[in-house]
Amino acid sequence: MKRNRIAAIGPNCLGVLDTTTNIDTLFLPPDRLLRPKRGGISFISQSGALSSAVLDLAAQEGYGFAKFVSYGNAMNIDESDLLDHLASDPETKVICLYIEGVHDGKKFLAAATRAAAKKPVIVLKGGITEAGSKATLSHTGSLAGAAEVYLGAFRQAGLIIAYDLEEVFDYLKIFEKTAMKPRGNRVQIITNGGGYGIITADEISQARHLRMATLSPATAAFLKKLFPPIAVISNPLDVLGDATEDRYQLAIEACLKDKGNDILLVVMLPQTPLLNLDKLAMQTIEFAQRSKKPIVAIVTGSEFATRFARRLEDRGIPCYEFPARAVRALNVLAARRTR
Amino acid sequence: MKRNRIAAIGPNCLGVLDTTTNIDTLFLPPDRLLRPKRGGISFISQSGALSSAVLDLAAQEGYGFAKFVSYGNAMNIDESDLLDHLASDPETKVICLYIEGVHDGKKFLAAATRAAAKKPVIVLKGGITEAGSKATLSHTGSLAGAAEVYLGAFRQAGLIIAYDLEEVFDYLKIFEKTAMKPRGNRVQIITNGGGYGIITADEISQARHLRMATLSPATAAFLKKLFPPIAVISNPLDVLGDATEDRYQLAIEACLKDKGNDILLVVMLPQTPLLNLDKLAMQTIEFAQRSKKPIVAIVTGSEFATRFARRLEDRGIPCYEFPARAVRALNVLAARRTR
Repeated sequence: MKRNRIAAIGPNCLGVLDTTTNIDTLFLPPDRLLRPKRGGISFISQSGALSSAVLDLAAQEGYGFAKFVSYGNAMNIDESDLLDHLASDPETKVICLYIEGVHDGKKFLAAATRAAAKKPVIVLKGGITEAGSKATLSHTGSLAGAAEVYLGAFRQAGLIIAYDLEEVFDYLKIFEKTAMKPRGNRVQIITNGGGYGIITADEISQARHLRMATLSPATAAFLKKLFPPIAVISNPLDVLGDATEDRYQLAIEACLKDKGNDILLVVMLPQTPLLNLDKLAMQTIEFAQRSKKPIVAIVTGSEFATRFARRLEDRGIPCYEFPARAVRALNVLAARRTR
Repeated sequence: MKRNRIAAIGPNCLGVLDTTTNIDTLFLPPDRLLRPKRGGISFISQSGALSSAVLDLAAQEGYGFAKFVSYGNAMNIDESDLLDHLASDPETKVICLYIEGVHDGKKFLAAATRAAAKKPVIVLKGGITEAGSKATLSHTGSLAGAAEVYLGAFRQAGLIIAYDLEEVFDYLKIFEKTAMKPRGNRVQIITNGGGYGIITADEISQARHLRMATLSPATAAFLKKLFPPIAVISNPLDVLGDATEDRYQLAIEACLKDKGNDILLVVMLPQTPLLNLDKLAMQTIEFAQRSKKPIVAIVTGSEFATRFARRLEDRGIPCYEFPARAVRALNVLAARRTR
């Protein structure tokens, strides 16, 4: 695809945003549509209004974008051309497609397979039910076709299927914020909230591509010596509601050394006054940068919690508001580890 | 239950918040844990840290609370006592429980059945898997027991089961913000985003207790005369990306009059500059206050979008960030309509 042909303007099309070259043909005012920072996400969408809503929210939540193309009903270039382009774009770490239909099935399957072999490709398909499919016909004129055929083709090509926009956000975050592929699927939970640890363990146990790790006896013995007697040295590792950043540091360090896990999922509920969030952020970021295991966090709360989470994310630690969202993203990350 | 016995302090217990009497025994600073405004939600939790995270986030997102009791391992009163109390509390519109175990099965089943007959009762059960259940034992000392037994009992009592905290937030919102029970389960979508309409239609078609409404021929003919020729007069009703607040007003008014639907789900993507959000909010609130059908909104975007959503919510229109969350909440609302 030639670069100068990228502006495929037609109905349902918002325009193009390219953070590398500063091309911005969105034609919407910045007080209504925040522009995201530069980053690793490239997004292709067949719906203009969906594009503007996604960009505005993603910018607010600190997602970084390489390219955003809202191509509507694709007058001159189609989703396969765009996929090929983004697959070889060095700025693009992860690709997401919102599509209602594809223009050439064979061409798409080939392009999607090529792209997915190089980087994660997430797809949200509009019109997977009869009612939705009827609506695509009057929107982009796409013949949405049988859901099974589409979903089957996506799986065959190795795409990551999202069933809602929230899943899109969850998956984009984990692939943009961490470059790391876990070596296995064993997750160790560290938490300062007992209930959160339990809910998270429930979610992991039900996730297809994840399982609960087991602390090695040596790690358990080491932590038992240092932690208060009522701390729960297991998985979840409960550092208790009165945990300080130092107790977290001990826990994270010990679990990173432990060979019995591949991924750390750290619940950090910042409501307790004993927790110095500045120090906790600095220490956790330092661990994440030295570590070969992905560290993902769950942080719930109001604005100060969100600021803490953004700080971690800017340095490679994806943060999620709720256990289910973190586990869903980890599940997709783990599923790709053998690819 | 005597009021003066409500302070059941023990491990894993945060304390009590009662917005009616201004009792606040949370012992956490307000800059770390925002206090929510007065409202219709009462929450019982067996986990202290979970309680503080929930309260902090809920306060930020505009949820209103009547009572919040974090009762830990329940030294003197248990969840059934609390349920009985809240069932007859006139300030409480909706009850939510986070529990890891119950102390007396028969007593709980009776109390839960009584409470659920009076108002919606949402339950999130920690420890529904083996790993989660093992963790409850060292947390509250609850014998979490077989998930099937618990979930079966919850269903028998008529409780609304949530499987994650995000679901808890979604369900609490719809029951707190709207008092209305829909007369049926037929949902009409109005949208200014084609893709959003399609995704929402897909979600509704897959929701157990909902189905897509059909616009009556009279409504369709009426709107066809007034709308631009490329507007899609169907379900979804696509008022197009250049919709003004007046076009929304026409659409909402016509759909409220239409006897072919029971619920309006209105997607309002506020990124386009033509949409006057002040007027749109005022008009939609006016409709909602006169209407006998629930109106629920989907609003995605950055801060100005959130402010718009809060304004609608304060006047009885629950707003959700993503289609799946709105539809999940509506599904639960519709399931209760015949009770």
